[in-house]
Amino acid sequence: METNLVNKIKNITGESGLLLGKDVSERKAGIWIDKPIAARAIVRPKDTKEVSEILALCNKNKLSVVPHGGLTGLSQAAITKSNEIVVSTERMIKIEDIDPVGRTLSSQSGAKLQAIQEAAESEGMYFPLDLGARGSCTIGGNASTNAGGNKVIRYGMTRDLVLGLEAVLADGTIISSMNSMIKNNTGYDLKQLFIGSEGTLGIITRVVLRLQEKPLSQCTALLAADSFDKVKKILKHLDSGLAGNLTAFEVMWNEFYILVTTPPALSNPPIPQNYPFYILVEYSGFNQVVDTQHFNGLLEAALKKDIILDAVIAQNEKDRRRLWGIRDDVEQQFQYGPIKIFDISLPINSMEAYIKEVRANLKKHWKEFHCTVFGHLADCNLHIITAVGSGEKKAIKLMEECVYEPLRAIKGSVSAEHGIGLEKKSYLTVSKTEEEIKLMKKLKKSLDPNNILNPGKIFD
Amino acid sequence: METNLVNKIKNITGESGLLLGKDVSERKAGIWIDKPIAARAIVRPKDTKEVSEILALCNKNKLSVVPHGGLTGLSQAAITKSNEIVVSTERMIKIEDIDPVGRTLSSQSGAKLQAIQEAAESEGMYFPLDLGARGSCTIGGNASTNAGGNKVIRYGMTRDLVLGLEAVLADGTIISSMNSMIKNNTGYDLKQLFIGSEGTLGIITRVVLRLQEKPLSQCTALLAADSFDKVKKILKHLDSGLAGNLTAFEVMWNEFYILVTTPPALSNPPIPQNYPFYILVEYSGFNQVVDTQHFNGLLEAALKKDIILDAVIAQNEKDRRRLWGIRDDVEQQFQYGPIKIFDISLPINSMEAYIKEVRANLKKHWKEFHCTVFGHLADCNLHIITAVGSGEKKAIKLMEECVYEPLRAIKGSVSAEHGIGLEKKSYLTVSKTEEEIKLMKKLKKSLDPNNILNPGKIFD
Repeated sequence: METNLVNKIKNITGESGLLLGKDVSERKAGIWIDKPIAARAIVRPKDTKEVSEILALCNKNKLSVVPHGGLTGLSQAAITKSNEIVVSTERMIKIEDIDPVGRTLSSQSGAKLQAIQEAAESEGMYFPLDLGARGSCTIGGNASTNAGGNKVIRYGMTRDLVLGLEAVLADGTIISSMNSMIKNNTGYDLKQLFIGSEGTLGIITRVVLRLQEKPLSQCTALLAADSFDKVKKILKHLDSGLAGNLTAFEVMWNEFYILVTTPPALSNPPIPQNYPFYILVEYSGFNQVVDTQHFNGLLEAALKKDIILDAVIAQNEKDRRRLWGIRDDVEQQFQYGPIKIFDISLPINSMEAYIKEVRANLKKHWKEFHCTVFGHLADCNLHIITAVGSGEKKAIKLMEECVYEPLRAIKGSVSAEHGIGLEKKSYLTVSKTEEEIKLMKKLKKSLDPNNILNPGKIFD
Repeated sequence: METNLVNKIKNITGESGLLLGKDVSERKAGIWIDKPIAARAIVRPKDTKEVSEILALCNKNKLSVVPHGGLTGLSQAAITKSNEIVVSTERMIKIEDIDPVGRTLSSQSGAKLQAIQEAAESEGMYFPLDLGARGSCTIGGNASTNAGGNKVIRYGMTRDLVLGLEAVLADGTIISSMNSMIKNNTGYDLKQLFIGSEGTLGIITRVVLRLQEKPLSQCTALLAADSFDKVKKILKHLDSGLAGNLTAFEVMWNEFYILVTTPPALSNPPIPQNYPFYILVEYSGFNQVVDTQHFNGLLEAALKKDIILDAVIAQNEKDRRRLWGIRDDVEQQFQYGPIKIFDISLPINSMEAYIKEVRANLKKHWKEFHCTVFGHLADCNLHIITAVGSGEKKAIKLMEECVYEPLRAIKGSVSAEHGIGLEKKSYLTVSKTEEEIKLMKKLKKSLDPNNILNPGKIFD
């Protein structure tokens, strides 16, 4: 990098705030990517003011900037080119304040999700966002991608958990919307611009999160159903019986369940492997004895009516972890060789026919293939993993077409919770109209006229 | 209006879609306003396509357009000038679809809130948004103003209940984001632009709402506390004891309680009038017997510890309505003569000192005044009603300064749930920074370059 620019950045961040050369290329481009970071530099600001000064400098010099959090994203939204500058939030990790009365937590954006969960816990509170990457992902990354997870049906996406936010625009302007109130209707809700926009409209520097009171009981069960129609009935039966308080409703299609309950998988099958559908359900309430009674009563009623065909109920925390272990053993998919992981959403009523169509599409191209399906059904979110014996570009593109194209007609989404990044931008038109994409581009142009912020991500 | 324009509009909407002259001025400008509508015309489109054609026409001719829903707003966001054109959604009332499996309802924006609640109910579902104006307000108006209400602590604001939305931009472009999934991360969440922006960025034509399963039990009580510190402790005690499932937490300051429990008010005092604070709490669960036991147990524990000093528990629906009747008898305020109603929010920890400061401010200007306080405390939202014996502009401005100015230092909001409209736009800087307002204006300019959509509302 030019000496002049190096000096200017060092003037802003200090010596240790700038990484060059080997210090850059020694880092992996992402937790799931086996390539080094290619970038002119990694800049590591300590606070919002430094982020502002760096962006003003880059904007003046028309230098592309890619924000980096924990690099755990699954949509290539943090991939860099060799001429781009990384702004990493790794030194912005301060949890600034916890208010147990207002039930809020404010933090710099580089704080890890797990650190935030633990900070909330230390004040007797609960931050319900949770993902497998909790130890590595940052709250800024969670907000930028509007992360989801397993408890969205009860607590919502990251968007629903962020009360306030501070972000820096491309020109260095600081938009400080650090609201801490549940109700605040004073003009446009600007934080929404930065949540889920994958760093293309601003760099998130601080957040105010809404905390919840802790769940005091857990009721968990694994259920089996013999048709998708029954799966829908079970959802209705349990969530209406719990008056809309069901906390998780994770469905596994037969092929997925067999895979994760057969050696070398971590689990044995607690229910025989011959049912078409398996459902992991959970309710978090406030009285273990009473809640268990009510929850079990609902399950018994469904068993009697043959809506549920088999059930295993967790008797303790160890059981509970064992049941979740089945659902979470996604790594077994690698047995199939090169795989492609999809993250889609679609109306529940369309799911059965849609999965049939995807399988039929795959069959047109490959005699043998795997198509395992599981996901957060109550949120309309399914994960599909396909394997066709090849990881080549052409094969991946064909798999993508098999999975994405049928979503068009049923108004499904090519990304439920992972985002678009580079990975899905050529399929954006499946889920967004021409007018929507035009409006997105108008917003981008208006807020970042030089196109320096994470350029080429989501759309060109 | 010019014959040419009249004909063009009639070509779009048909004869009955255009009201002129007396048909306009016979209508009241708002449910709380005793003046007729002053406008060139009221246009009544039947669907999104007609709204689109009307806006394209108005944009081409640079005619200002004010969207009208149920006219129940409290911030003068639907006030018109005599040269403006009203676009009313009164003929766009179709509830298009209810999906009890996907738990969604889609509707045109002119449908009344109550009609939507009832439609959900008819399918055994529940739409939790609820306001006093339910019979008159429209769902499009609720979305445009991001309406709140009494159950926000559990179910969120309108923003949290809208999954998808269709809106027409100033130039007639239809942005159809009729998403029906809880998870959908495909680029910018464009619906957020139109929610809460009071018709300044687009006219909402259709919505997809998230429905909930119905509550199966209700536990309601009126409590008394002798200090604000205890009020905070009661909130913590109940919400943590219910693991974050408290449904309502409405606080009344002493002066308010005395007013609404003394003739000619509708209610007698179920608890003596000498306590500094009264709290109406509610929990909605799934088993009346068990929930009552748990809820009463929590109250008893708090009574034993002297956190709560007195309590009346509703034994049935009639009792419950009676307790809510006390909270809802806001009309008694008119006994005080001309009043000014405020809708503010602020951190719970700042409330006690803030209310003292407001009273001290009022005392500087008036020897005698009323300042009654009540509201949705758990959402940080208080309503303050002031009366100083005069309804003149100068007095109103002084009262506004007394109430709004102290919010600056504590990052409070001049509008928790009613919006800004014309009423509060001169106080927008109390709650928004210069940079935020500049960004709002940039968005407005980008989406509505001719400034035809509800011009002058929120900001100039």
